[in-house]
Amino acid sequence: MNADCPLPQDDYPTVQLAHGGGGRLMRQLLDELILPTLRPDGARGLHDAARLEALPAGAQLAFTTDSYVVRPLFFPGGDIGSLAVHGTVNDLAMAGARALALSVSLILEEGLPMATLRRVLHALRQAADAADVRIVTGDTKVVERGRADGVYINTAGIGVVPAGVRVHPDRIRPGDALLVSGDIARHGMAVLARREGLEFETAIDSDCQPLWGTVAALLDAGIDLHCLRDPTRGGLASVLVELAREAQVDLSVEEAAVPVTPPVVTACELLGIDPLHVACEGRLVAFVPQAQAAVALDVLRAAPGGAHAAVIGKVGAGAGRVTLRSPYGTDRPLDLPAGELLPRIC
Amino acid sequence: MNADCPLPQDDYPTVQLAHGGGGRLMRQLLDELILPTLRPDGARGLHDAARLEALPAGAQLAFTTDSYVVRPLFFPGGDIGSLAVHGTVNDLAMAGARALALSVSLILEEGLPMATLRRVLHALRQAADAADVRIVTGDTKVVERGRADGVYINTAGIGVVPAGVRVHPDRIRPGDALLVSGDIARHGMAVLARREGLEFETAIDSDCQPLWGTVAALLDAGIDLHCLRDPTRGGLASVLVELAREAQVDLSVEEAAVPVTPPVVTACELLGIDPLHVACEGRLVAFVPQAQAAVALDVLRAAPGGAHAAVIGKVGAGAGRVTLRSPYGTDRPLDLPAGELLPRIC
Repeated sequence: MNADCPLPQDDYPTVQLAHGGGGRLMRQLLDELILPTLRPDGARGLHDAARLEALPAGAQLAFTTDSYVVRPLFFPGGDIGSLAVHGTVNDLAMAGARALALSVSLILEEGLPMATLRRVLHALRQAADAADVRIVTGDTKVVERGRADGVYINTAGIGVVPAGVRVHPDRIRPGDALLVSGDIARHGMAVLARREGLEFETAIDSDCQPLWGTVAALLDAGIDLHCLRDPTRGGLASVLVELAREAQVDLSVEEAAVPVTPPVVTACELLGIDPLHVACEGRLVAFVPQAQAAVALDVLRAAPGGAHAAVIGKVGAGAGRVTLRSPYGTDRPLDLPAGELLPRIC
Repeated sequence: MNADCPLPQDDYPTVQLAHGGGGRLMRQLLDELILPTLRPDGARGLHDAARLEALPAGAQLAFTTDSYVVRPLFFPGGDIGSLAVHGTVNDLAMAGARALALSVSLILEEGLPMATLRRVLHALRQAADAADVRIVTGDTKVVERGRADGVYINTAGIGVVPAGVRVHPDRIRPGDALLVSGDIARHGMAVLARREGLEFETAIDSDCQPLWGTVAALLDAGIDLHCLRDPTRGGLASVLVELAREAQVDLSVEEAAVPVTPPVVTACELLGIDPLHVACEGRLVAFVPQAQAAVALDVLRAAPGGAHAAVIGKVGAGAGRVTLRSPYGTDRPLDLPAGELLPRIC
């Protein structure tokens, strides 16, 4: 615990409705807990519009947002705070953008233990530091008991796309190679296992991590990144089906090439879940020219979490179908899962 | 109702958990309701990072966010959708910034009537159009029944500050005049009245409206805007107390000069609430050089909602106190309200 930071929890061990009311208690929560934790440089005004440094002329901005409602708040390999930073930093990275600034907006449930809030705030801050992005503005609301589930977090992010970089589904071309940056399906299974109290022989940690470093390494290696996407909700299957449709190409995926670790395979089999439908929060799918696939794979394998990176398929001309080829050479079409496989995993 | 927009409500009259699951139902909700309503230009990719047009060299960006949890969702003079646009556009305007792009992130409660969602989305869109700002990116989550209250909305906004404009508390100077752009306390009373089923003799409409037009008119008139702030949660009292503290000046406010309409006075008296503590969502406080106060007042009175704009006080040297001077010439110190006067009014 941080002795430098006197806590309103001395007076209030849990969040009160008054902590969101615009009065003294809210000011105290902001001044004594939220601002010192998220912005220890002492900068004030988290609740105002922040002014950002002037950008280089012609800088291309990217802008994204996500709300995080994961249950439970803490899971093996991560928590709602780190997820809220990584998810938004990664959405920017998938547009080829380095994150510049984040906003953090909290919806707190009355009765949330102040110790839980403090833990979440510290996780937000640590993840932002690790991803080299500043939290520059924010908001805090409190709703009555039973009108939320502890804490929901929204982060929005502004990023800058380096000159000459254009990463977009409309750049996917027949002949492109399709790569994945590591083994899939760990985040969803980690959250599910913790939530349902499941014990597997080998513990499964979430893959939750920031991806800009991986994208920057690919760009530094001279890879012409046609398209990137992180397979979060809906898993790898959703991402491939949506991108094939958007780019109006066919995708052919080698089932045996898709990296899934044995503990995840076992857990998925036990639960009757297809790992292709399970969310990652620290993996990306990359479409690159075939001639650069080998170099791109080397870069991915050297990146954090990239030990199992693989070329998993290729792009063909077509009308938007995704085909999964089995080790026996038979093909089956891949489609979106119908609906709610794993609610509230992000 | 919009006949051009086939609705998933044909199949699902209420929001299902599966609408947030990353599969077919979520795709359908996005493609058939959310994207066509928020982005009728047909642009896709609301769930990706949006790329913004290149900005002029040296453009100064502002960035802000707010989550909206107002109860009820619809109230006289506004609703959660219009509030979510105006609140964020106004936070940018208070930094002297014209809103350029908004994100919209929805947290939906399972069981929310699809008709309610549609109504909220239309309100978001109409308010964005009226404020001349584009909704460029977004997110949708669904939580179980009893884990939210219908719908919560987060908006984040990026704005551009015109060259040469610097609006900030550290520019407040002894001798500045203090103006308010219209009558106060209507938003909070309108929400409270609707929520509690109160009937007043004269209906009170929220003051919810965008304020960039007013700020632009002040700038066009050559006013050197030292500081702006919109008195939302905590009302005019909170804003004045916080600004006096931040700027390390004393503020002297003429109680009789603070504009409150008779229906709001009556309602506040009935409920024992001080209008100085009640939120506005379409009013601003401006600090300007005394010599420009008369011109600024003329501009404010000509702006929408500005009929009752007034000079309400002045800035003096001091250590951060706010004093309210009664019509009888007696002074009393103004302080922050303790806590939760009016929960969930924004």
